[in-house]
Amino acid sequence: MPSLPRHVVIREVGLRDGLQSIQRVVPTAQKIEWIRDAYAAGQREIEVGSFLPARLLPQLADTSQLVEFAKSLPGLRVSVLVPNLKGAERAIESRADVMTVPLSASREHSLANLRKTPDEVVAEVARIRAARDASGSKTLIEGGVGTAFGCTIQGRVTHEEVLRCMQALLDAGADYVSLADTVGFGGPRSVRELFMKAHVIAGERFWCGHFHDTRGLALANIYAALAIGVTRFDATLAGIGGCPHAPGASGNASTEDVAFMLADMNIETGLDLPALLILRSKVARWLDGEVLHGAVGRAGLPRTFTALAASSA
Amino acid sequence: MPSLPRHVVIREVGLRDGLQSIQRVVPTAQKIEWIRDAYAAGQREIEVGSFLPARLLPQLADTSQLVEFAKSLPGLRVSVLVPNLKGAERAIESRADVMTVPLSASREHSLANLRKTPDEVVAEVARIRAARDASGSKTLIEGGVGTAFGCTIQGRVTHEEVLRCMQALLDAGADYVSLADTVGFGGPRSVRELFMKAHVIAGERFWCGHFHDTRGLALANIYAALAIGVTRFDATLAGIGGCPHAPGASGNASTEDVAFMLADMNIETGLDLPALLILRSKVARWLDGEVLHGAVGRAGLPRTFTALAASSA
Repeated sequence: MPSLPRHVVIREVGLRDGLQSIQRVVPTAQKIEWIRDAYAAGQREIEVGSFLPARLLPQLADTSQLVEFAKSLPGLRVSVLVPNLKGAERAIESRADVMTVPLSASREHSLANLRKTPDEVVAEVARIRAARDASGSKTLIEGGVGTAFGCTIQGRVTHEEVLRCMQALLDAGADYVSLADTVGFGGPRSVRELFMKAHVIAGERFWCGHFHDTRGLALANIYAALAIGVTRFDATLAGIGGCPHAPGASGNASTEDVAFMLADMNIETGLDLPALLILRSKVARWLDGEVLHGAVGRAGLPRTFTALAASSA
Repeated sequence: MPSLPRHVVIREVGLRDGLQSIQRVVPTAQKIEWIRDAYAAGQREIEVGSFLPARLLPQLADTSQLVEFAKSLPGLRVSVLVPNLKGAERAIESRADVMTVPLSASREHSLANLRKTPDEVVAEVARIRAARDASGSKTLIEGGVGTAFGCTIQGRVTHEEVLRCMQALLDAGADYVSLADTVGFGGPRSVRELFMKAHVIAGERFWCGHFHDTRGLALANIYAALAIGVTRFDATLAGIGGCPHAPGASGNASTEDVAFMLADMNIETGLDLPALLILRSKVARWLDGEVLHGAVGRAGLPRTFTALAASSA
């Protein structure tokens, strides 16, 4: 066997990366129920929202309330996305555990999506670090390098540029860095190669892999990353979260499918998969009419499932 | 890198495993067009049908005509499925290159599906081998061990039983043996373990991996099998082929998604992916109203695709 990790964290990002791509506004009470049930099902890292101006993403306007609720659950690590210093100040004030600053390694995607060059994002991270340190806050700064395998606007993005951005984020004061295949261009070989290089640069400061399932490779890519020692992955319940730049594309890796694969591999996640599937059904009712993903949610668990953890046949 | 193979064969089984699960009868002329276009797109192994009694599967009643056409294409290896000696005699007469005899390692699934125990199937393979040798035919016998990761009727199937069936097939005179996750119960760890054991038993006589995508793991499972040196996989265009014992389940690994993953990994398949996607659109028109699968067919190829083969970034 390749040296697979024994324990892996699945960070639920459905409340942010999922809901931001869905027009309807899910009521705060339902989001709180989602967080509570996910926690009860064993999830210990949840990205609850994003500190953007509410006019840009009214779906996520209740992020500070969600952080407040999530912080009341013992041992839950609460993440938020922040696009800039202004958002970071709100994250610090909310006492979120992790604030993720997205950087797009594709210059063209960065300009279109964030209206900043990658280097301007790096400079903003330096300001965020200064503000965080000045405030005495313990909120960790995660620099998330997106479009790491190319993008629909610019096309190809080189490994060199991705790794340059990653090093610059670390130098600017990000505590951790992550890699995201924002549009599902990556496959297992390129994931393996880029993530190995990223590990060389970031070491213990490498945080998370984030894969979209646009071309069906999210689980194969996660497996490839696992095999080189990556131990934390983003995923969304029911795979929600499209990509505005890839019409017809499916969303994120599905939390329940990732959890099923890891259970088959005898890798601990702490997750109660039947409980997650009950939550999935609840979320599916709330999102009635939206396109959902995930194979385990459709097909159900195999009847051999309970035997899996104990057996090595 | 794990020692990945440099060349992999994708055997198209949509005309058999796909169409047998769809009620409508696709006209022979369309099937011939499918075979011709698949060949033009680079496919060199195609399972064109099954020699079962036509009353059981009217969708596949034209198998001998399809073998005749497919045999006219230079270098195309033509497979058929045969459930018993009677079918094998027809396969030999048709001059198919490979006849696949399915064996279900799950005794209960075997009785329900084939009305034979696994050992009775082994005995039939011995009779098929005798008939093949007596006829002077060159048609190869492939023993396909299905429900290798469990089944919906019996539940768990042990590796020991799967490997016992495989060894028995080889001893009875099968030229090659294959493994199939008929209902999508397997994950990368169990695939890796079972396929490694199978390789020890069968060596060069191991033929093919066959994965259903019922729980979304087909591509991750193929990646796991690739990493231990498996070089031939079954797949169906648009992932057609449900499982009658798993309602709501999706079908086979999608040819186009497997081809995309392998292209990303710089593994040669000889396939022209844009041509395959044009054929997929044609098949989708013929199967209008049926549930199709496959992410690349929905999302399209990444705009970086042409650069993939040449780049290692």
